[in-house]
Amino acid sequence: MMRPLLRRCAPRAAAFVAPRRPASAFFVQAARQYSVKADVASETKLQDIDPSQLVIQKTTNPKPLKQAKDLIFGRNFTDHMLTIEWNKESGWQKPHIVPYQNLSLDPATCVFHYAFECFEGMKAYKDKAGQIRLFRPDKNMERFNKSAARIALPNFNSTALIDLIAQFTRLESRFIPEERGYSLYLRPTMIGTQKTLGVGPPGSALLFVIASPVGPYYPTGFKAVSLEATDYAVRAWPGGVGDKKLGANYAPCIVPQKEAMSRGFQQNLWLFGEDEFVTEVGTMNFFVAMRNKETGQKELLTAPLDGTILEGVTRDSVLSLARERLAPEGWNIVERKFTMRELDEAAQDGRLIEAFGSGTAAIVSPVRSISWRGKMVHCGLKDHEESGEIATKMKNWIEARQYGDDEHEWSYVC
Amino acid sequence: MMRPLLRRCAPRAAAFVAPRRPASAFFVQAARQYSVKADVASETKLQDIDPSQLVIQKTTNPKPLKQAKDLIFGRNFTDHMLTIEWNKESGWQKPHIVPYQNLSLDPATCVFHYAFECFEGMKAYKDKAGQIRLFRPDKNMERFNKSAARIALPNFNSTALIDLIAQFTRLESRFIPEERGYSLYLRPTMIGTQKTLGVGPPGSALLFVIASPVGPYYPTGFKAVSLEATDYAVRAWPGGVGDKKLGANYAPCIVPQKEAMSRGFQQNLWLFGEDEFVTEVGTMNFFVAMRNKETGQKELLTAPLDGTILEGVTRDSVLSLARERLAPEGWNIVERKFTMRELDEAAQDGRLIEAFGSGTAAIVSPVRSISWRGKMVHCGLKDHEESGEIATKMKNWIEARQYGDDEHEWSYVC
Repeated sequence: MMRPLLRRCAPRAAAFVAPRRPASAFFVQAARQYSVKADVASETKLQDIDPSQLVIQKTTNPKPLKQAKDLIFGRNFTDHMLTIEWNKESGWQKPHIVPYQNLSLDPATCVFHYAFECFEGMKAYKDKAGQIRLFRPDKNMERFNKSAARIALPNFNSTALIDLIAQFTRLESRFIPEERGYSLYLRPTMIGTQKTLGVGPPGSALLFVIASPVGPYYPTGFKAVSLEATDYAVRAWPGGVGDKKLGANYAPCIVPQKEAMSRGFQQNLWLFGEDEFVTEVGTMNFFVAMRNKETGQKELLTAPLDGTILEGVTRDSVLSLARERLAPEGWNIVERKFTMRELDEAAQDGRLIEAFGSGTAAIVSPVRSISWRGKMVHCGLKDHEESGEIATKMKNWIEARQYGDDEHEWSYVC
Repeated sequence: MMRPLLRRCAPRAAAFVAPRRPASAFFVQAARQYSVKADVASETKLQDIDPSQLVIQKTTNPKPLKQAKDLIFGRNFTDHMLTIEWNKESGWQKPHIVPYQNLSLDPATCVFHYAFECFEGMKAYKDKAGQIRLFRPDKNMERFNKSAARIALPNFNSTALIDLIAQFTRLESRFIPEERGYSLYLRPTMIGTQKTLGVGPPGSALLFVIASPVGPYYPTGFKAVSLEATDYAVRAWPGGVGDKKLGANYAPCIVPQKEAMSRGFQQNLWLFGEDEFVTEVGTMNFFVAMRNKETGQKELLTAPLDGTILEGVTRDSVLSLARERLAPEGWNIVERKFTMRELDEAAQDGRLIEAFGSGTAAIVSPVRSISWRGKMVHCGLKDHEESGEIATKMKNWIEARQYGDDEHEWSYVC
């Protein structure tokens, strides 16, 4: 059993800053500004995460390695976990790396009742030289802090946590397969641990990081998915929390996901509002490549970060690479609202080139078709194709930076 | 340590029924139907909760009783807890009453990552004859099942769980103070316990009930609260889950609550949309008593159950008693959308009689004033008053049924 993870509780949480939200362009006829303001910093300076204080307790019972082919996402974990406790009286405590083990929590703990929980998804890769590399960990830490602040959980120094995650990842090096496509999925998580039922800011929290070795999302090459455009349930809304990586955004999407799957679709494509704006896919951001109706120019389109869209790290990487490498070839790279009707029109006109989701798990996930209002919108792939040119290029470009073939500042050598 | 709470996992959850949602009247210009459909029942009949299988393990270390005056809501708990595990292969397992203790959960458990969690709040009261009484437990169980189904957690037989809660409550009888106003707060909770990171329906779950003795919400009589009308953040949306008692609805409201408190207001009054419809208060439903602008008739108004409003048991009790006892006195009892502007107009015209919140904690909570667009809307109380006539009557009427003075079918003798 772990050392006790819980602290005495009290009604105020400590210094953190909640980001301003941009005004919602989604809101029908809206001039309203949705914005949850920065929280007031506490008077006393609390301790931040300090990697120099790391205490490592190695397992005496190392796990056997699974065969690469038997790896299933998020089902098997490495020997250890990283844990850091926080309390509102003194801030972040000594970091620990301990053998992977259960958490022991009072049944009144606020994470069980009020969803005080947020997380990140990131990966560590082994390059040709055997070095371990993280991909844009600064982006994950930035979002982790934003998510935590939005639900009154504490913030922390990003660099310090990256340092600790790097140490943890090095310790688990043997779990990262050498082959291309394999990696170590890292799951930093923060939960509120105050053990009272009053609804208020948690007086204590636990940050932990667990790691699961994973294989390629498409072991035998791309397999294009079909989506169901979903309007009977709404994932996110202006003034809500859809742009944060909170547990609260996930459980409510499962029943619609089951419904879509029962009708043969892999994921939901979440629409918003009477205009049916296209927002995002299941657990991915959504991109579409099409020719402009007026100018005929090729455009790579995705929904803007208006507060309802998850700020995907892969989304940002796709946009950045597109601006760097596709724009010079004549592509227009556009973050704007677009509707399902526009997509359908483009498909009918033969202007829809391809569509794909983007996320940490698959990097890109090509989309074959979208079921909408009882008809099927075909997204540009020929029957024998499983991916379009842009999705394929993006996967290769991003993977090259993840594995260090294309040496770039996005890659963080542990 | 408890017996292991976790089971092997797999991708489909079992038989349950998600309720149809009514169409949202809130949605601006909307004809759209928001509705998450009933889930498909599984083929095999799974075991339901069976009270006859209850196993009781009594504590060997009973806690000392706290003095009534020292009781704080949800901070101290009784000697035991009720636990029932579920898994998708066989359904609900034997119920257990065990000494109150920590839960031991794998850090990959889905409740920590994706907010698979829902709960209820209900109370047990001791009547003059020393009998223990629950208040409308069937309503809580009905909502608990709706909440669970909405996030792909399993359903159960309500009568069976009420029976078990009654047994649990009798066992904890010594923790329920005899005095009027005191009670035992019960917190039935259900969490997903599948220990994999894939986003899907949990293959296992844990239902537990813990209990905390509580004193009167207003120990020295009513104390009217002031609210901040909140438009910069949005609690619920049509097609979302605001009508369910999910953890996911709570954490996102804490930063706005802290903001309101920092400006001297006890709670948020959540507005919706450009029209600024009045929805609910912090953790309570909202009622307003006013004279109709055209007819002068007295009206008791509350927002309708359109999918964005929590289906409060106290809300339902207030409406029911109002129809029974106020309507004959000439009151019109109305569930309809109303705006903050209407409230303000009524206040200016002297038509606003009183306003109050309703919930399990306080029964009713009188509202003195609402801050809106930089001005203060006074809700009808005179400076020396802490409650209006309707709120006071409602508290007395409901309390009489809770404590069995007014013998009624709402009261369930354990």
